[in-house]
Amino acid sequence: MSSIHTIQVPPAASPGNPITTIDTPALLLDADAFERNLDVMQARADAAGVALRPHAKAHKCPAIALAQIQRGAVGICCQKVSEALPFLQAGVTDIHISNEVIGSAKLDLLARMARHARFSVCVDHPDQVVALAAATTAHGSRIDVFVEINVGQNRCGVADARQVLQLLEVMSAHAQLTFKGLQAYQGGIQHIRDHAGRRDASGLAAARTAEVVDALDRAGVVCAVVTGGGSGSVEFDLASGVYTEVQPGSYVFMDGDYARNVYTNALRFEHSLFLATSVISVGNSDAGQVVVVDAGLKSLAVDSGLPTVWGDGGASTTLHYTVVNDEHGSVQMLNHDVAKPALGSQLLLVPGHCDPTLNLHDEIIVVRGGRVEVIWPVSARGHSR
Amino acid sequence: MSSIHTIQVPPAASPGNPITTIDTPALLLDADAFERNLDVMQARADAAGVALRPHAKAHKCPAIALAQIQRGAVGICCQKVSEALPFLQAGVTDIHISNEVIGSAKLDLLARMARHARFSVCVDHPDQVVALAAATTAHGSRIDVFVEINVGQNRCGVADARQVLQLLEVMSAHAQLTFKGLQAYQGGIQHIRDHAGRRDASGLAAARTAEVVDALDRAGVVCAVVTGGGSGSVEFDLASGVYTEVQPGSYVFMDGDYARNVYTNALRFEHSLFLATSVISVGNSDAGQVVVVDAGLKSLAVDSGLPTVWGDGGASTTLHYTVVNDEHGSVQMLNHDVAKPALGSQLLLVPGHCDPTLNLHDEIIVVRGGRVEVIWPVSARGHSR
Repeated sequence: MSSIHTIQVPPAASPGNPITTIDTPALLLDADAFERNLDVMQARADAAGVALRPHAKAHKCPAIALAQIQRGAVGICCQKVSEALPFLQAGVTDIHISNEVIGSAKLDLLARMARHARFSVCVDHPDQVVALAAATTAHGSRIDVFVEINVGQNRCGVADARQVLQLLEVMSAHAQLTFKGLQAYQGGIQHIRDHAGRRDASGLAAARTAEVVDALDRAGVVCAVVTGGGSGSVEFDLASGVYTEVQPGSYVFMDGDYARNVYTNALRFEHSLFLATSVISVGNSDAGQVVVVDAGLKSLAVDSGLPTVWGDGGASTTLHYTVVNDEHGSVQMLNHDVAKPALGSQLLLVPGHCDPTLNLHDEIIVVRGGRVEVIWPVSARGHSR
Repeated sequence: MSSIHTIQVPPAASPGNPITTIDTPALLLDADAFERNLDVMQARADAAGVALRPHAKAHKCPAIALAQIQRGAVGICCQKVSEALPFLQAGVTDIHISNEVIGSAKLDLLARMARHARFSVCVDHPDQVVALAAATTAHGSRIDVFVEINVGQNRCGVADARQVLQLLEVMSAHAQLTFKGLQAYQGGIQHIRDHAGRRDASGLAAARTAEVVDALDRAGVVCAVVTGGGSGSVEFDLASGVYTEVQPGSYVFMDGDYARNVYTNALRFEHSLFLATSVISVGNSDAGQVVVVDAGLKSLAVDSGLPTVWGDGGASTTLHYTVVNDEHGSVQMLNHDVAKPALGSQLLLVPGHCDPTLNLHDEIIVVRGGRVEVIWPVSARGHSR
């Protein structure tokens, strides 16, 4: 009898095999839809003359970052310092940490990485600048610095040009820190459903940004880069004349939450990310028209709503994911004429929120034409420090 | 200049160091509270003469399972087949898969593992029995089988004794499958806040279970084990005279959701699990009394509500975690007299739901007396197949 230590969980999928053979739950990426999403966004950014710096927090996957850069992206954003490491090691040479960073372990890692590639980071307080200067001095590295301004989300960011200038004064004592410009991100407007409402809110954030840029200009300070925007606001950000760089992330996958936005005459993206799940129980007569599937909270983020069951090219009109448990979920037939999916059959779900869903998985199974093409590791999964 | 491939994310903590030096976000386990929780539950199960089989889906951590077994637990439950492997490899010799399993990859792994330890699994459909029989035949292994009965959750489970007998008939053709008894779990009642309401609902589930046990008994079928129950119902399950085994999981940590239940004259557990987070921005005058911390959706599950800020031995009365983003959250001061936590300072959060929060982390930092004692891997993190 073999040792227990030779037992392994079998691979979820093998290249060449049909989708239906994939062990579930598993994240599937529709390669065709994914590539179209990348092409559409790059073409729109190019047409606007605005740099595209996609946010890697959405995918945490170096293979996807390299596909974005190959199409013309200038680099990527990461939300955490540790998140950046797998991308650096995969060959990404320009990484912006789109947040303030504090703490010696994080700053030490950032300063070490900055010896090997172009890195930038945000600040909104003098103490962050001083700590960043100390870490980069210790490692003999240089780093670009963005001052984050608050454009309505009331999260991070300074209030006005005067506070930007105060930070520039602190920065001026440290030659290894280069002021690059402003970060102006308003996360709160990305999911305004109404198109006009989202346009107006994006316009307000852009106007507030323009005020600070102008005030700095009058003070003789040039913002070489103004960066911000997300998948919900990017069409307006590209047209604003204010942003020189945009940071969308979710457009790659187009999750359920972003799909609930109304898009008119706008950038349109396709669902490319699905969670494959299997029916493990078909219940009993008491339980009515319900089946149980093997995908729950541990393979799906539900902070932006429950997943949608995917039908034939669109959301299913007959099957509804209604209850989420830790490792399972209930799928209800919307009327009694609908046959229950068979025990063991596979369903595809569109996650409500792609970013935290990706963070639950170690790999993405890339599929094309009904078969597995390649399996990509989600190398930055769990890199939250 | 060293190679980029020699750079690593530094460890979050080192044994012996003070809690305040832990790199955040990081999961902390208060060893004293944790051990008291384990002792209290084992003592109550022993006093009731009921076997304790804790649910490992709550912690996914072999070190915790071994601590439970060392105190008298008869084994563990796992919710998924792949989840069981790290526990088997760590020396757990009795594992119940508390769900139906379908699919050849999963059944093959289960049958392989069952050669090395006592395994049991649930069924509620004849096709599951047939598939299980085929896999165990292929591997020359034996497995104990529980028939799951629906006691009100309307998820998995057969409706009545007649359906149990139908499954026993299918099972009887396969000598390697041993009928062990019934699983009767009503997840829907675990979080009824009111004590009497929870007691009555638990009583209904137990009564329904007793009916099936009695009907089987009249048919000459003995249920050696009746297993079920969770941390919210366990006090009633222990006293029911129906359950011979209970499956609580969350009592180990006592998350925010379970803490919102009202317990009177009952089993009381302490919060032992905390997420350490750091203040990365103290905002600006426009943003009011808000600071931003480095713990969001990717280190905290929010399906059962936002986390609570932990104060001096209890929930903070002055700090409130109000907004969750992907990697960050906003903490608000509840009145203007409260000083803002300083930039870089550490806060402790009590997660709303422990099970999916654990699944976001690769390690648990065990602390005692203000210092790091040991670091335990969450070996079954992400094992959802």
